[in-house]
Amino acid sequence: MSISRVKALFFDVFGTLVDWRTGVAREAQSILGPLGHSLDPFAFADAWRQQYEPAMEEIRSGRSPYVKLDVIHRRMLHTILPHFGLEKLGERVLEQLTLAWHRLDAWHDVAPGLERLRHRCLIAPVSNGNIALMSDLARRNRFSWDAILGADLARDFKPKPIVYLAAADAFNLRPGDCMMCAAHSSDLRAAAATGMATAFIPRPREAPTVGETQPGVPVDVVARTLEELASRLEV
Amino acid sequence: MSISRVKALFFDVFGTLVDWRTGVAREAQSILGPLGHSLDPFAFADAWRQQYEPAMEEIRSGRSPYVKLDVIHRRMLHTILPHFGLEKLGERVLEQLTLAWHRLDAWHDVAPGLERLRHRCLIAPVSNGNIALMSDLARRNRFSWDAILGADLARDFKPKPIVYLAAADAFNLRPGDCMMCAAHSSDLRAAAATGMATAFIPRPREAPTVGETQPGVPVDVVARTLEELASRLEV
Repeated sequence: MSISRVKALFFDVFGTLVDWRTGVAREAQSILGPLGHSLDPFAFADAWRQQYEPAMEEIRSGRSPYVKLDVIHRRMLHTILPHFGLEKLGERVLEQLTLAWHRLDAWHDVAPGLERLRHRCLIAPVSNGNIALMSDLARRNRFSWDAILGADLARDFKPKPIVYLAAADAFNLRPGDCMMCAAHSSDLRAAAATGMATAFIPRPREAPTVGETQPGVPVDVVARTLEELASRLEV
Repeated sequence: MSISRVKALFFDVFGTLVDWRTGVAREAQSILGPLGHSLDPFAFADAWRQQYEPAMEEIRSGRSPYVKLDVIHRRMLHTILPHFGLEKLGERVLEQLTLAWHRLDAWHDVAPGLERLRHRCLIAPVSNGNIALMSDLARRNRFSWDAILGADLARDFKPKPIVYLAAADAFNLRPGDCMMCAAHSSDLRAAAATGMATAFIPRPREAPTVGETQPGVPVDVVARTLEELASRLEV
């Protein structure tokens, strides 16, 4: 796969571009602390995120119809509340907590890296996050996307091939003209299977159990930051 | 309808934001002229656009499956070629011509108006144009959209209600929190029927037969430019 022909760069978001763990922990603390709940906010963030794969699989398998990630985050939250003694939270607090995922901060290299990469390529998130979630994260972190692609467009979730294929098609491109950039080997394996080039961006600080330091699959590029990726793509 | 609660502004694009007639005529001239074809480029642009409604209706009615506007533009082009003695154009030229719609210029008030409006509201095109078409027009004209909504997301065409409803839902909003901005009464009528606020932006120079100077339906705001709209919304 030659990376010189890449016309569009697609990005995983949670973990790859934004630090969900620190952000969710901070939001949980700032919402629940003043209400008198004391909990380990990082354990809370980790427990919430651990519900992610089974919740996705319920929809990817076809057992449940597609709903946006905001709805799934809310369902995942309900599952973990009893473990933290939070069964009695009111509707307004649950809504505020669910929206914690809209208020995450990007790793420091992301905004300057995207700005450089955008000179040479179309750029878009190809995330399992829904459009409202992606647009809020973009405003907060000053990402200038060409479009928000991913789950809401495909009405299914990564790593199913339709999500990557729908993203390439949205830009009138073949998968071979696109590169998927992610911190997770499973994402890159699925993108490569559709014919996309791949870039691994290690985020060892993502979370204790999920931060990959090296790709577990063959990739076209490994870059420690998006700025390094821009240099590799000669932007 | 109070306009003070509007959280998202949705925009029609062809005619409302960009001058399709001048742009298509210019592109047709610059592509076909050097090949020795002489034609009235404005008549060509008008004839092409006149195929729009019947082509849309074929899909809105359910007779044909959804395809993106780029594909429809190509079909429409085929229909008019014989009227201009252009039956023998090759594949490469037909492709170049079809992409003329990606190279249109915005009316002068649009980029500065959107920049102001974006301070107060989420902004997105809700057009029948596909994502690649919208992202190319955005780059060319420096529009900073929060997302590209519209036909490709809903997989159907305006003025069917699903297109407006899918746009509001993408931002986690109710239609009543959104305002549709367009130069065409039919678009605003359909948006209002879903509960959206509406702004009429007259574009009398759009084309000889379609430039409405006044709305043909009740609207919440009439603004001659997007900058005037920004002032009305107190941005």
